[in-house]
Amino acid sequence: MAWNRKDLLSMQDLEAGEITDVLDTAESMKEIATREIKKVPTLRGKTVVNLFYEASTRTRTSFEIAGKWLSADVINFSATGSSAEKGESLLDTAKNIEAMSPDVVVVRHKASGAPSLLARHLRCSVVNAGDGLHEHPTQALLDLLTIREKKGHLDGLNVTIVGDVAHSRVARSNIHGMKRMGMTVTVAGPPTLIPPACQELGVKVSYRLEEAIAHADVIMMLRLQHERMRAGFIPSIREYSRVWGLSLAKLEQCRPDVLIMHPGPVNRGVELSPEVADGPYSVILDQVANGVAVRMAILYLLTGSKAV
Amino acid sequence: MAWNRKDLLSMQDLEAGEITDVLDTAESMKEIATREIKKVPTLRGKTVVNLFYEASTRTRTSFEIAGKWLSADVINFSATGSSAEKGESLLDTAKNIEAMSPDVVVVRHKASGAPSLLARHLRCSVVNAGDGLHEHPTQALLDLLTIREKKGHLDGLNVTIVGDVAHSRVARSNIHGMKRMGMTVTVAGPPTLIPPACQELGVKVSYRLEEAIAHADVIMMLRLQHERMRAGFIPSIREYSRVWGLSLAKLEQCRPDVLIMHPGPVNRGVELSPEVADGPYSVILDQVANGVAVRMAILYLLTGSKAV
Amino acid sequence: MAWNRKDLLSMQDLEAGEITDVLDTAESMKEIATREIKKVPTLRGKTVVNLFYEASTRTRTSFEIAGKWLSADVINFSATGSSAEKGESLLDTAKNIEAMSPDVVVVRHKASGAPSLLARHLRCSVVNAGDGLHEHPTQALLDLLTIREKKGHLDGLNVTIVGDVAHSRVARSNIHGMKRMGMTVTVAGPPTLIPPACQELGVKVSYRLEEAIAHADVIMMLRLQHERMRAGFIPSIREYSRVWGLSLAKLEQCRPDVLIMHPGPVNRGVELSPEVADGPYSVILDQVANGVAVRMAILYLLTGSKAV
Repeated sequence: MAWNRKDLLSMQDLEAGEITDVLDTAESMKEIATREIKKVPTLRGKTVVNLFYEASTRTRTSFEIAGKWLSADVINFSATGSSAEKGESLLDTAKNIEAMSPDVVVVRHKASGAPSLLARHLRCSVVNAGDGLHEHPTQALLDLLTIREKKGHLDGLNVTIVGDVAHSRVARSNIHGMKRMGMTVTVAGPPTLIPPACQELGVKVSYRLEEAIAHADVIMMLRLQHERMRAGFIPSIREYSRVWGLSLAKLEQCRPDVLIMHPGPVNRGVELSPEVADGPYSVILDQVANGVAVRMAILYLLTGSKAV
Repeated sequence: MAWNRKDLLSMQDLEAGEITDVLDTAESMKEIATREIKKVPTLRGKTVVNLFYEASTRTRTSFEIAGKWLSADVINFSATGSSAEKGESLLDTAKNIEAMSPDVVVVRHKASGAPSLLARHLRCSVVNAGDGLHEHPTQALLDLLTIREKKGHLDGLNVTIVGDVAHSRVARSNIHGMKRMGMTVTVAGPPTLIPPACQELGVKVSYRLEEAIAHADVIMMLRLQHERMRAGFIPSIREYSRVWGLSLAKLEQCRPDVLIMHPGPVNRGVELSPEVADGPYSVILDQVANGVAVRMAILYLLTGSKAV
Repeated sequence: MAWNRKDLLSMQDLEAGEITDVLDTAESMKEIATREIKKVPTLRGKTVVNLFYEASTRTRTSFEIAGKWLSADVINFSATGSSAEKGESLLDTAKNIEAMSPDVVVVRHKASGAPSLLARHLRCSVVNAGDGLHEHPTQALLDLLTIREKKGHLDGLNVTIVGDVAHSRVARSNIHGMKRMGMTVTVAGPPTLIPPACQELGVKVSYRLEEAIAHADVIMMLRLQHERMRAGFIPSIREYSRVWGLSLAKLEQCRPDVLIMHPGPVNRGVELSPEVADGPYSVILDQVANGVAVRMAILYLLTGSKAV
């Protein structure tokens, strides 16, 4: 009921009531995936454009399935082989797309703030599908949906986010969303990968994994980009994995009802040992399934908000 | 009513009555884009294949949206990563696609005449979406639609086309279409970029921008390919822009009701200063919107012509 | 009636009754391509994901059209630009896709056995669209459909497969299927391109083209990969073509009702002279058309088998 936004740009923007609205809507969308006929006419005659400047088949596919199950027309506009290569600016490309009357433009871009720029200039809805080091709000929403589903509530839970927090838009979006929902967030990782200003976001910081995860209800492992090693942030992948990777042995020190999350794709044997990634505490594939539901909810709420 | 062609290959082929038919049909299609539900069942069960041998996300997207709003099945067949890379000829690829029973094949190819070759050998309809230096008929049709919409008529208007006329299929298609519709066409640009045989097409030639645009009802600026400089056609981008770019100062010498057009993507600061590109005389985004409507009209007329 | 499989992985798996079921179903699907409205609601609300790790626009397009004519939602998940490039394993990618609740995953992969691996781990149906040197079952099924259509039956026919049998998943799938349907198969080619263990598959081997094709009801020419020459399997393309290519002169020594087949794309002038490829005995484009029908049948049978 609180939902009357034109765009979804960040978790930082959202009130707790809005987040709850998205999660409630997503929950009812989940039921569609279990039907014999996975299709509802809700967005028939609406057009969704996936404008992806960074390769991401996984997130794009999630949005594409979400749109198609809602009966929208979905257009994939990859920036490779496009006018972008002819030197056209992001804004010119987006205005050209807008002139074709889409209802929603889903944008992924390496520049933080690109979706906000578009949202200010376009009349259609803009969804941030990941912008630079800034935010990835639908990822945080699907994470919250997964946690709420498994735990029954969000308020009061202890979450520990482990790894390359400094370069993670997933971490940033989750921290904003989790704080808003009354959760306690700890970030843990090597000092080079924890942003100095982290405490300003209201999170605890830990430089010892065992300490950070001991009382966690949820452990969210972040993906380690291999270029971090080349850039000198970590001594080696092996060393990182030994200290910051989650093995069965370390998991045994955790709460018996802990949830293990990862935004994917997992570097098996780096962030997570295979036994942990595929084990009973892991909800990684639930996250993926919830991704479609959350994106259906967002497409529905954004287009519906303008309908009346 | 005059429309009974199998293919759309060039503007040179079309009679004035046929062009008017397309524009009238496109005008009625435009209304669909303004609806709450942007979808009509007109082409349900028809299959449109976009066969693009040159990268062009923008034109391809325009055809894709046009097809989907008409409820056609749209298949993107990019020549990258296809049998074309295994050495298969254009005609073999096209015959293979035809064997899958599409109703329309939309083709873009760097070789002038490629769509005509396909049209002679395929039973299905072929639409030229740009072939080498030859023609780009749907671009000319959307330009004519835009002019007619803004001016109320075409007959008797003065149009000036500025820039790299020699290498522009957009210019060539527009010249044919505009002449047919009773318009007066002037081309202007550096002598190296104006084809010697240009006057045979029935256009005036000018080598001074100020003179060429002074009495124009419509100024169509062409995109300058950067490779023209490397090939020695122009001394430098900066020099070209100074002499042939349209600035606010030059625009002030034009008619107060002049229209500024550009097929996109615009090189801001080269063909057009940003103030002109985004200013009140610019109809560049109208052109894009009309592109979808014109392509809907073409898909409708081509498939309808065979239906009865 | 015999059809109750979850997956289509190989021709080696299939019983004669199952093959006949597919062909009968495909025959009824073919009628749809001739309709004014080429669309049936059979798979409405089903989701088909094309997971292609090898470039193959042609096969992917065939599956895409098949899915769309049946009203399925079809998602192209190209491994280029995807998580696969971030080092994710095939199985992790596939499990992530499965978490998005597709009904069928169509997979092409350079590793033999990749589809079987996925089939063991995924609950949804898996279709092998070509795996390494192993199998390409839908190609064999469309070949069998084409032969049955032209000859009226399969049992007792003589088929000769010519060329690079050693590296051909098309040959392997066809040999299994043809043997099962009571056909006599001869393979012919230079000794370097005929696998030593070939006779164990129950086929005759010939090293002389003229002898091998003299009594054939069907001649299936295989595509020659140019890398075979670089790898030393053949002395030169020209020499290969002279000895193993099918010219009009050689064709005159064949049965007057012989069928010439090729899985495409054809190297014109190598495996087939242009006159033979386009001549009256060639059924190459029938194969392509039947490809859509066979894939519709497979999608229908696989999803139907789980429906009840």
